[in-house]
Amino acid sequence: MGVIVQKFGGTSVADMERIKNVAQRVIKTYDRGNDVVVILSAMAGVTDGLIELARQASETPDKREMDVLLATGEQTTVALLSMALRSLGYSATSLLGFQVDVLTNKQPMSARIISVGGDRIRDLLTRKHIVVVAGFQGCDSDGNITTLGRGGSDTSAVAVAAAINADACEIYTDVDGIYTADPNICTSARKLSHVSYDEMLEMASLGARVLQIRSVEFAKKYNVPVHVRSSFNEEEGTMVVKENSEMERLVISGVTCDKNQRRITLKKVPDQPGISAKIFSPIADAKILVDMIIQNTRSGGETDLTFTVAKADFDEALSITRQVAGDIGATEVLTAESIAKISVIGVGMKNHSGVAAAMFSALADENINIRLISTSEIRISCMIEEKYAELAVRVLHSAFNLDKETA
Amino acid sequence: MGVIVQKFGGTSVADMERIKNVAQRVIKTYDRGNDVVVILSAMAGVTDGLIELARQASETPDKREMDVLLATGEQTTVALLSMALRSLGYSATSLLGFQVDVLTNKQPMSARIISVGGDRIRDLLTRKHIVVVAGFQGCDSDGNITTLGRGGSDTSAVAVAAAINADACEIYTDVDGIYTADPNICTSARKLSHVSYDEMLEMASLGARVLQIRSVEFAKKYNVPVHVRSSFNEEEGTMVVKENSEMERLVISGVTCDKNQRRITLKKVPDQPGISAKIFSPIADAKILVDMIIQNTRSGGETDLTFTVAKADFDEALSITRQVAGDIGATEVLTAESIAKISVIGVGMKNHSGVAAAMFSALADENINIRLISTSEIRISCMIEEKYAELAVRVLHSAFNLDKETA
Repeated sequence: MGVIVQKFGGTSVADMERIKNVAQRVIKTYDRGNDVVVILSAMAGVTDGLIELARQASETPDKREMDVLLATGEQTTVALLSMALRSLGYSATSLLGFQVDVLTNKQPMSARIISVGGDRIRDLLTRKHIVVVAGFQGCDSDGNITTLGRGGSDTSAVAVAAAINADACEIYTDVDGIYTADPNICTSARKLSHVSYDEMLEMASLGARVLQIRSVEFAKKYNVPVHVRSSFNEEEGTMVVKENSEMERLVISGVTCDKNQRRITLKKVPDQPGISAKIFSPIADAKILVDMIIQNTRSGGETDLTFTVAKADFDEALSITRQVAGDIGATEVLTAESIAKISVIGVGMKNHSGVAAAMFSALADENINIRLISTSEIRISCMIEEKYAELAVRVLHSAFNLDKETA
Repeated sequence: MGVIVQKFGGTSVADMERIKNVAQRVIKTYDRGNDVVVILSAMAGVTDGLIELARQASETPDKREMDVLLATGEQTTVALLSMALRSLGYSATSLLGFQVDVLTNKQPMSARIISVGGDRIRDLLTRKHIVVVAGFQGCDSDGNITTLGRGGSDTSAVAVAAAINADACEIYTDVDGIYTADPNICTSARKLSHVSYDEMLEMASLGARVLQIRSVEFAKKYNVPVHVRSSFNEEEGTMVVKENSEMERLVISGVTCDKNQRRITLKKVPDQPGISAKIFSPIADAKILVDMIIQNTRSGGETDLTFTVAKADFDEALSITRQVAGDIGATEVLTAESIAKISVIGVGMKNHSGVAAAMFSALADENINIRLISTSEIRISCMIEEKYAELAVRVLHSAFNLDKETA
């Protein structure tokens, strides 16, 4: 018995039959004596339909008004689920973002949650209501409706769980947990019973399909235990929790692959103080995120400078770089189309030396060249030719003893 | 130049093309130097679609949740119109019921407006924004979303106009004004240039198709001039205004016909004090509105008592009456299926005797029997056999010199 937050995504509420299934699932939890808060997304496809409608109204729809429009999606599902629950004899009340005081910053279509008011939810729970909260939406300090961007309902769920000090935040989705690698690439990938917040954050390319990364940041900040599990079966999924000594002692928890990056190289950049700022300031000004940066010193006071950006930002970043290259006297701008970033991630590597060596040697054994390397405390990433991406994932998965047989 | 409120109904915003037409209409008014507040309904058919969706969720959908669901309809249109206006280079901002502080009582699905906060609208008008407000919806003092019932957007428009002290409230609809009779019944009916609030209230059966009656009560209370006009042409419609000496001096402004009533008669009711209360209290308790009541004294301390109710309430009213009839010793309960209420309405009749006599004699000339009569200061109504309804309207329209030729 406790306070449980359950979040169901768009595919789980895609039609009335599925909404009724969600009602049954919620009731089962409630009937065990729990207080239940449900967070819903819009029906699958509805958000895309609304975006299409907006494009008919305007080629570049105003973002504030887009948020007003998009917020109708979750408003619809929370009303329908509450009706379904009530028709089954349960007290249920829907609440929209502004009614829960989900206060966000003023960035329409990708707002960040500042705070969530728990009073109204707690009051309804005290009266044994099932509370059904519209995910994805909030309200800024001027009283405008805002939305949180794709996957924002995950963040809504975690933020509500934090606000009411819930015992668990269950994220129901169409996969049944977090895997050691993408099972589509690596058939021997296995489901993790636990993963730490930090690992989950580093597993962006695995996790983003399952959890909005911002929700993990929120969970970490407020120490909310998140249970990622399937909405189609009753199996335990993966617990995303604070790192602790009880956790499974794997050196590496996962191998990820990110093909969404492209590389840009500036040849023969003068090696002067402030030159990096000249290159990266205009890129940052264009709100383009640079992922990896490597500088190779050449003879004669010149260096080659290589960095990567997301594919979507590539054209803009390239045009800015060419401009800057002329200004600073770099001789050439090179690009590489087909690269992939392979990462091994694990809190265990903090206490184990030799992870990098093991990684490089496993790749070398397959004659896979490493073009760039970057690291964090719990992650090592290598940029390699894209065509070797799947092979590299399988090789590393095996090299770090993650294959099913060894678990 | 002034502050203009323009309300567009569901058929005027039924698709994107029509929404763009509304944008053009609004811009025309704005470009003349006016401050413009637009009130919108949901797209035609959308509300019915949402009700159908709710019925799939529950056979008897919870009313509070129904309001949450229905409110998405106007939320969609206000966002789309604001986008369309912005894409044409105009500053436009949508506001929902709760954002305008449309405070209502706690009666879901047929809430009444208590007050409207004008501050946010005035602030936006000062900054030369076109303000696009969701009609039909409000918020109760507990912060729940409420809706105002069919036609509620009219009341939203008048209430907003009152709150910001607008110079005019224009109701754009699919008819071009208020007529002296239903043009479908009476081809010689003509459009009134002006009609008083009181006349409009009495013209319920004519007016309800054009204006929600509650909006007229609101307009009268706050003295808001309402202009009912067509959204499909530029013609002047009908001004609904305070009665004054400048107005067209017609004895009768309109003839109406209401076929939505049924009659119930209790025979031989004991003529005792308190007997009426015994009959009508349980009917009132069931929230059934009794329209006309006539008591005919018989010999021997008994009376016959006849009253009328709306068709929708007939079955329930009949069952209550049969119950009461047994309790008080009335001998029989009779019903009449096919009746119609024909009314002549006009502020002019206050100063003209003989209106009733003229009405009765015109009907008598056509051998139309009058079953019941009721009156107000500016209305005389006769209950007649339904089959004579259209004939009666035409006869009276002509008898009171309302036909086009005589205007």
